[in-house]
Amino acid sequence: MDRLRQQIAFLLEIDKLKTILRRNHIADGSRVENDAEHSWHFAVAAFLLSETAAAEIDILKVLKIALIHDIVEIDAGDTFIYDEAARAGQAEREERAAQRLFGLLPEDQAATLLALWQEFEEGLTPESRYARAIDRLAAVMLNYASEGKTWKQHGVSKAQLLAVNQRIALGSPVLWDYVRDLIEEAARRGYVDR
Amino acid sequence: MDRLRQQIAFLLEIDKLKTILRRNHIADGSRVENDAEHSWHFAVAAFLLSETAAAEIDILKVLKIALIHDIVEIDAGDTFIYDEAARAGQAEREERAAQRLFGLLPEDQAATLLALWQEFEEGLTPESRYARAIDRLAAVMLNYASEGKTWKQHGVSKAQLLAVNQRIALGSPVLWDYVRDLIEEAARRGYVDR
Repeated sequence: MDRLRQQIAFLLEIDKLKTILRRNHIADGSRVENDAEHSWHFAVAAFLLSETAAAEIDILKVLKIALIHDIVEIDAGDTFIYDEAARAGQAEREERAAQRLFGLLPEDQAATLLALWQEFEEGLTPESRYARAIDRLAAVMLNYASEGKTWKQHGVSKAQLLAVNQRIALGSPVLWDYVRDLIEEAARRGYVDR
Repeated sequence: MDRLRQQIAFLLEIDKLKTILRRNHIADGSRVENDAEHSWHFAVAAFLLSETAAAEIDILKVLKIALIHDIVEIDAGDTFIYDEAARAGQAEREERAAQRLFGLLPEDQAATLLALWQEFEEGLTPESRYARAIDRLAAVMLNYASEGKTWKQHGVSKAQLLAVNQRIALGSPVLWDYVRDLIEEAARRGYVDR
């Protein structure tokens, strides 16, 4: 029962992910998205679009990555990917957060989740590259749907969108083609500064 | 590209799951939970607690079930499990919703998701029984954490909690032991009417 109590304590602690707000809005533009619902959307997209992955992937591993990739933000907060200044110190903050949060679990599971999160952060394996592609796709897709609301609020340019999102190509060339077209269309429609 | 456009259209449509509200509150009691963040929490719990399943399970299938099990509520709405009257007609509403929503996907994926959802609803396989156990655990765990806020608001009794949640035993006897103890403790603390 001790093992189960540790697992339940972890599950209650990560409930806080529902209160960590991202910069982007949900599709209807009515409010910003939280990390928990983003992680759900990411996971669904990952399994429906797995046929677009650049390489053979273990989809179970990708789903686990999607589900846990943002948990560190409970302690470290959400860092806007287009905000260079805010990103200073992000890696250290998130590493400390990972140790504390995953450390609530039984040792074997703590090690598994820490390794999955580190794999995602490094982005060197087919699974983590594909996962990072889907994570970016989810954000661009919602920003486009809400007519660039977040991009306009934060003065994000088309050049920034292209620079930050081109890593999608590493995980899924097909999705990068799609996202690049979407960014061009967003610029034409005035959803983002040219 | 047509296939990808259908998949993206589905992903944008199911964004609405973030606006479908459940009866239970998040752990801190500050607001009710939405279906998207619940689906995330369910999926994380499912993979961390898989060792408690009553039988051998395909955890990838369970995760897919967790991610899509509530999508029908976009059209059919959330039905409170302790509200007998509201449950009339629920099956028909949800079946229509499943046809429309999953039908946005390419045919093969529509069929896969419909089958997964039906498997969950029927609750006859090891995966669906375990998934239903985790779905219930997630709700009881949060209601307990928020000191029975939802149970008190809706006048749910301890007898109802025991009756509705005993199906957890079909998917995970270990989790049913845990939840039964939690319900007893909730009654002692006055979180639920005895």
